[in-house]
Parts: sequence; structure tokens; C-alpha cells
Amino acid sequence: MSEIEDWRRRIDEIDEQLLRLLNERARCAVEIGHLKKKIRQPAFQPEREQEILRHVERANGGPLGDAAIRRLFERIIDEARSLESHTMTEDERGRSKPE
Amino acid sequence: MSEIEDWRRRIDEIDEQLLRLLNERARCAVEIGHLKKKIRQPAFQPEREQEILRHVERANGGPLGDAAIRRLFERIIDEARSLESHTMTEDERGRSKPE
Repeated sequence: MSEIEDWRRRIDEIDEQLLRLLNERARCAVEIGHLKKKIRQPAFQPEREQEILRHVERANGGPLGDAAIRRLFERIIDEARSLESHTMTEDERGRSKPE
Repeated sequence: MSEIEDWRRRIDEIDEQLLRLLNERARCAVEIGHLKKKIRQPAFQPEREQEILRHVERANGGPLGDAAIRRLFERIIDEARSLESHTMTEDERGRSKPE
């Protein structure tokens, strides 16, 4: 059991790094939201989302399969898009706080 | 537009790091799968999955909200569990290659 515990501790460390990166990525999406708002571009840009998915599938070395990577990044993109849209609406209302 | 491009390049870099960490996390899950198999434990352990979600929610500093983080990690856990179960089945069949 203790060997399982060691792997789980490693997973917990990885999760903290994932959390940090996911939030950093979200901050980038918020910045993009502000910029898009200024130049009146929509939040949803399907071509860019496909580019992101192609990028990670191409770079994927496994053991997660390409379908798993696609599902994961679809969720990541989805959450970024929600936050970005929210930012753009808040900009419209002249507020800056996301919640 | 070029400032948006800068943020997108940053996102692409983050995505490569996320990809690397997601696959490293998956390798840990595969190792845990082998160990569980040996001691005849099931792949699905709801208590551990709740612990993972509590851990990341507690550590979350935003801008992603706790609900977004929960959705993201539910997907991450789900993909890890699929791979881990697959590993355990392959162990049973005396094979080691996942696909």
C-alpha cells in the first residue's frame, strides 16, 4: 500500500502544477478577452480552437491517447472561453471583477 | 492583433507543459493500476477521487472558479481511471502494451 501512497503523493504534486498552469492559462484568456473586446472580435473563434487541438495532438507522446487529449483540451478550452466571455461582458458593464 | 498573438504563443507554451504533466500523471495512474492489480484492489476508489478534488479546490487561487476546477479535474481523473482500468485488464491478459 505504501508504494501506492508514493505514487499518489506524486500525483498530488502534479495536480498542484496543473492547477497553477490552468489558472495561468486562464489569465492569458482573460487578457485576450480584453483585447478582443477593444477590437470588437467575438470570444468564440473556432479556427483558433481547432489550431489548439491540432497542436496538442501533434505534440502528444502518450500514454494518454489522442482522443483522451482531445477530450481534456476541449474541456480546458471550454472553461477558458467561459471566463473570456465573462470578462468581455464585464468590460461592457464597465466592471473589472470576474465574480 | 499582434498582442493577441503574443498571448496565444504563451498559451501554446502552457499547453505543451500541460500535455507533459497530464501524460506524466497518466503514467503514475498506470503504475498504481499495476500495484492495485497485484493486491486485488478495484481501479475505482471514490474516496481517493474525492480527496483529489478537495485538494485542488483548496489550493485553487483563481481566476478559474472552484466549479471550473472541479469540472476540469473530474475529466482528468476520468481519463486516468480509464487508462488505469485498461492497464489492469491488460495485466490480466498477460499483455503490457496499452493499445
